Amino acid sequence: MAKKVLIIGGVAGGASAAARLRRLDEHAEIILFERGQYISFANCGLPYYIGNVISERDYLLVQTEESMEARFHIDVRPEHEVVAIDRGRKEVEVIAKGERYRESYDYLILSPGAEPLVPPIPGIDHPSIYTVRNMNDIDKIHRHIQQVQPQKSVVIGGGYVGIEMAENLRELGQDVTVIEAGPNILAPFDFEMARMLEKTLHDHGIPVITNDAVTAFAPTAAPATGSGDKSHRGPVTLTLKSGQTLTADLVILAVGVRPENKLAREAGLDIGERGGIKVDPYLRTSDPSIYAVGDAIEVKDRVNGAYSLIPLAGPANKQGRIAADNICGRNIQYTGSQGSAILKVCNLTAAATGNNEKQLKRAGIAYRKSYTQSPSHAGYYPGGNEMVVKILFTPDEGKLLGAQIVGEDGVDKRIDVLATAIRHGMTVYDLAELELAYAPPYSSAKDPVNMAGFVGTNILRGDVNVVHWDELPAMDPSTYVLLDVRTRQEHQYSHPEGALLIPVDELRERIDEIPRDKKIFAFCRIGIRGYIACRILAPHGFDVYNISGGNELYAA
Amino acid sequence: MAKKVLIIGGVAGGASAAARLRRLDEHAEIILFERGQYISFANCGLPYYIGNVISERDYLLVQTEESMEARFHIDVRPEHEVVAIDRGRKEVEVIAKGERYRESYDYLILSPGAEPLVPPIPGIDHPSIYTVRNMNDIDKIHRHIQQVQPQKSVVIGGGYVGIEMAENLRELGQDVTVIEAGPNILAPFDFEMARMLEKTLHDHGIPVITNDAVTAFAPTAAPATGSGDKSHRGPVTLTLKSGQTLTADLVILAVGVRPENKLAREAGLDIGERGGIKVDPYLRTSDPSIYAVGDAIEVKDRVNGAYSLIPLAGPANKQGRIAADNICGRNIQYTGSQGSAILKVCNLTAAATGNNEKQLKRAGIAYRKSYTQSPSHAGYYPGGNEMVVKILFTPDEGKLLGAQIVGEDGVDKRIDVLATAIRHGMTVYDLAELELAYAPPYSSAKDPVNMAGFVGTNILRGDVNVVHWDELPAMDPSTYVLLDVRTRQEHQYSHPEGALLIPVDELRERIDEIPRDKKIFAFCRIGIRGYIACRILAPHGFDVYNISGGNELYAA
Ligand SMILES: Cc1cc2nc3c(=O)[nH]c(=O)nc-3n(C[C@H](O)[C@H](O)[C@H](O)COP(=O)(O)OP(=O)(O)OC[C@H]3O[C@@H](n4cnc5c(N)ncnc54)[C@H](O)[C@@H]3O)c2cc1C
Ligand SMILES: Cc1cc2nc3c(=O)[nH]c(=O)nc-3n(C[C@H](O)[C@H](O)[C@H](O)COP(=O)(O)OP(=O)(O)OC[C@H]3O[C@@H](n4cnc5c(N)ncnc54)[C@H](O)[C@@H]3O)c2cc1C
Ligand SMILES: CC(C)(COP(=O)(O)OP(=O)(O)OC[C@H]1O[C@@H](n2cnc3c(N)ncnc32)[C@H](O)[C@@H]1OP(=O)(O)O)[C@@H](O)C(=O)NCCC(=O)NCCS
Ligand SMILES: CC(C)(COP(=O)(O)OP(=O)(O)OC[C@H]1O[C@@H](n2cnc3c(N)ncnc32)[C@H](O)[C@@H]1OP(=O)(O)O)[C@@H](O)C(=O)NCCC(=O)NCCS
Ligand SMILES: [Ca+2]
Ligand SMILES: [Ca+2]
Repeated sequence: MAKKVLIIGGVAGGASAAARLRRLDEHAEIILFERGQYISFANCGLPYYIGNVISERDYLLVQTEESMEARFHIDVRPEHEVVAIDRGRKEVEVIAKGERYRESYDYLILSPGAEPLVPPIPGIDHPSIYTVRNMNDIDKIHRHIQQVQPQKSVVIGGGYVGIEMAENLRELGQDVTVIEAGPNILAPFDFEMARMLEKTLHDHGIPVITNDAVTAFAPTAAPATGSGDKSHRGPVTLTLKSGQTLTADLVILAVGVRPENKLAREAGLDIGERGGIKVDPYLRTSDPSIYAVGDAIEVKDRVNGAYSLIPLAGPANKQGRIAADNICGRNIQYTGSQGSAILKVCNLTAAATGNNEKQLKRAGIAYRKSYTQSPSHAGYYPGGNEMVVKILFTPDEGKLLGAQIVGEDGVDKRIDVLATAIRHGMTVYDLAELELAYAPPYSSAKDPVNMAGFVGTNILRGDVNVVHWDELPAMDPSTYVLLDVRTRQEHQYSHPEGALLIPVDELRERIDEIPRDKKIFAFCRIGIRGYIACRILAPHGFDVYNISGGNELYAA
Repeated sequence: MAKKVLIIGGVAGGASAAARLRRLDEHAEIILFERGQYISFANCGLPYYIGNVISERDYLLVQTEESMEARFHIDVRPEHEVVAIDRGRKEVEVIAKGERYRESYDYLILSPGAEPLVPPIPGIDHPSIYTVRNMNDIDKIHRHIQQVQPQKSVVIGGGYVGIEMAENLRELGQDVTVIEAGPNILAPFDFEMARMLEKTLHDHGIPVITNDAVTAFAPTAAPATGSGDKSHRGPVTLTLKSGQTLTADLVILAVGVRPENKLAREAGLDIGERGGIKVDPYLRTSDPSIYAVGDAIEVKDRVNGAYSLIPLAGPANKQGRIAADNICGRNIQYTGSQGSAILKVCNLTAAATGNNEKQLKRAGIAYRKSYTQSPSHAGYYPGGNEMVVKILFTPDEGKLLGAQIVGEDGVDKRIDVLATAIRHGMTVYDLAELELAYAPPYSSAKDPVNMAGFVGTNILRGDVNVVHWDELPAMDPSTYVLLDVRTRQEHQYSHPEGALLIPVDELRERIDEIPRDKKIFAFCRIGIRGYIACRILAPHGFDVYNISGGNELYAA
């Protein structure tokens, strides 16, 4: 007998599972329930539609009810909400157009996604405040923009949805401010990397307020700057914890998401500590007839081993495919996520994979780190830009734990190579050896990834001691000398107080000017000359350290 | 006592070795001999300087004699040619400005590179014919262009130097023709991939003549189209094997290179079958005091295990670094090359890594192949383009053997991920699992590399049978039906003769129209719908195959 599979949620995980199921089993009965009006839309494109970067709303609809039914012979039911799972009878309860009915299953796949957090802040139900999850949300924001013509907007939350929304609202010419409660935006990035992104947002007219949070929303007494529809969707005044107030014609609330676990919870399925549905490596919930995938589940973090929420489309799509495989008897494991993520931040691209320092510290994993700044392609070929590559690796064998990159160009390439490396347990030694494809328009003979590998191995082999700028404040200044090995011009332009200038090319002759009774912290702009200085001085008995990443990284 | 190291060749491998040696040993005596006027120039940038893409000649000089001496305290000797190695006395013989002298060594590093082949074709010494290896060559070509103002040029040899030169001469407005003796240009690519590149060259006004070779050059009797300097650097008439003749104001001879092995040979060092200097994994020649790196050596091909010539800058730079490491007692192995290469061909990027079909056949390695065509980033985000990804893998465990990609955008990223995968012995199953970084401007939730992995695993698991267009001609047409599952419009626009049209979305209803006594070869534009058709038809008992890569790939 043909098996009957019900799928709850018709977008990334759900639609992927449906399509794959059909390809594996031409005879199965497959019903796809979607609460919203649309299945298979491009969540990730929503902010770009608001900014007119994606010019047509239709482009967001990757598949439609009709196209899925025609191609995959799937019974697609939009505007059908599953409201209960009756595991005993293997049935679900559905509400559609006010009608309630039941549908039986052999297998059930849950891909209900995650819902935006809406904290209980006074006034949060003001009609000019929106969350961003689906077509409906984006249609409402779009209408608000058309009708109110906002001039000022505020984005609450500096996660990637918030930042993408901020950038796209700015594209429309609005004054946009981002408010972030944490010390930096974009949690996958460590502080110093996120700083570069905050700076570029600022330079593009998007101020970012960190370490502050909204405590109240209230209708603005006197109308603010926007026009039209005042009564209903008028301006909002935001009061922050710091006491600061802001007004906005439009507020985007993007303070994170939480797994849609209600159905699963009420059905008595195991829920993890982070609130996600618990699944085994085959993506089976605690009920073997029920699979769950996507934003709603907890997955094993491949680096630190902890169960985590990693709400990203790549994993959701792949998990949907694997759940279908397993329902068709294939025994495929999902071996965990590593949190590979990327986003555009104005002129910059920011990308991360694996764990960052915060995560490693939390997990109690020892690590070393290194920063390199390398050109996106050969310096002599026009159009290149420098990117900052941060890698984290184990102190013993140099196994990669995480990487973060910020730059204008070629960032996506390097993060994907590093993501591949992390997934396969590679070390900094492996990075140094990789044979990547080189021609001047694309790379350098030593690619930024190789360079990160060289520098990492140099640290591990003890060929150079490194110190990080953020370690300096805790040290007694009388115990070290800052040695600036840049050129006179660079030094004059700006330098940390008290730094001793000896350009690297003069070091050998002027070696006697360097004190022998202190640690020497050599630095240059990005770290290469500082490293060379170390290699010149160390054999002469100096206790010398390179300031990793150079002066530029921390100047920001 | 400080060791004394001599290096022969001052560019990619030699200069890299010199810099690394100094960083590892502040006290060593290091002398760098370079026959030419310049060290450390950007060989790979030379064609782009001719095309004014690199606007300043100075940009090509990555390091100079002065900068290397100042920073690394290296005795740099340009215009010093080493003419003999006296291994017994551990000395070399040098000629500089007509003077001959000897210099002793503890260690010697050979990085003399490779020289352009100049076949003994009658008339090949005509002064309008140039090879492209160094600054001197490029200065001469530059002068020729300035003085003769060529309107027609011919590039002989469709390797990457030839193609880059052709594109850059075309940039200057010249009529450029490429002549290639083999069946296709760019040997790292298989025929059908190279075809796309030949086509784009053609579309950009650069006709490519394949399967033909020059048999004679002669001064053109009546001046051709160029102006100036007729007497000396006048036009050339080329006669081809086919009988065709061409005239040109400028001829670039780029028919390949051979290792500069003369010094090594005369010194009695072991030379390999391919003419390269033989080295062990530590890059030591048959004389343990002498190391050799770069274009001059034979390296182990990591895929097929054969000793090969892989004259590329990435390997040369890394080998230089490793030779220095080993001279400083580090015991680092160079574990072989995989031939990762990339180049720009007008609007396209072409990249390859590992072995191609020709190499695998030659090596007798069994393989399967798959083509996928995937967008460089999410289809709904503007600016994306499709790329064709070809992967080759073992028929049993699916281990990757090679990859080739042609596309407009994002090709460099995917080849580097695949190069990393090949280096670490990954399989198509691993590709399917990779968690790459996704946001709409950069990729799709299923990256082209994942997609190649899915399709590869589908083939290996027997989920789909594939057939390749190049296998069809050998088959009896009465044994199969070509089933076109594209839309009516696509079919009407063009289709192979005799193809039966049933759009994929109509297959289920029209299944009775499909003959059951023949093989069914389903095809669409790129292969997805063909695959889906297979998954629909196979369960109904059809002997059905997907034509890998779809119609488009072979239409060219
Ligand atoms: C604005 C935005 C931008 C993003 N950008 C990126 C990006 O650049 N890169 C990236 O990797 N990820 C991005 N994501 C995240 C990505 O979209 C999600 O990780 C992915 O869509 C999760 O897939 P899913 O199937 O778990 O959930 P979803 O795709 O959200 O689908 C869940 C669906 O289930 C439906 N549903 C829930 N409960 C029920 C029920 N009881 N009955 C019927 N239907 C129900 C919901 O209506 C919803 O449509 C972005 C998300 C948003 C919102
Ligand atoms: C036009 C062009 C474009 C290229 N593009 C690319 C590309 O895009 N990507 C890529 O990976 N590779 C490219 N390459 C190849 C790359 O440049 C070489 O692989 C690399 O330079 C090899 O390094 P090497 O040190 O072995 O030789 P070289 O860099 O050629 O240096 C050898 C030097 O040794 C000197 N020498 C030889 N014999 C003696 C002697 N007896 N005494 C003193 N000096 C001597 C020579 O004068 C020469 O300068 C390109 C090459 C050319 C010519
Ligand atoms: C589109 C969607 C329904 C998935 O459909 P899908 O058919 O599984 O995915 P694709 O169209 O990418 O096709 C992939 C299939 O084609 C196959 N394929 C791809 N290229 C191929 C080629 N050239 N030849 C043969 N097969 C090919 C793949 O192997 C895969 O099939 P498999 O899973 O059976 O191995 C689902 O991803 C979706 O709803 N996406 C939009 C929502 C979303 O993802 N949001 C978050 C990101 S914005
Ligand atoms: C330039 C050239 C002389 C090599 O010099 P090099 O000093 O070894 O190379 P780079 O300038 O790239 O610097 C790399 C070194 O800096 C280190 N480094 C790079 N970034 C760093 C950073 N941010 N912090 C600390 N160290 C850094 C690397 O670890 C490496 O040192 P190591 O080898 O001791 O580990 C040589 O490559 C050359 O002549 N190139 C031109 C010719 C050529 O390559 N042609 C073919 C391609 S066109
Ligand atoms: Ca329907
Ligand atoms: Ca000198």
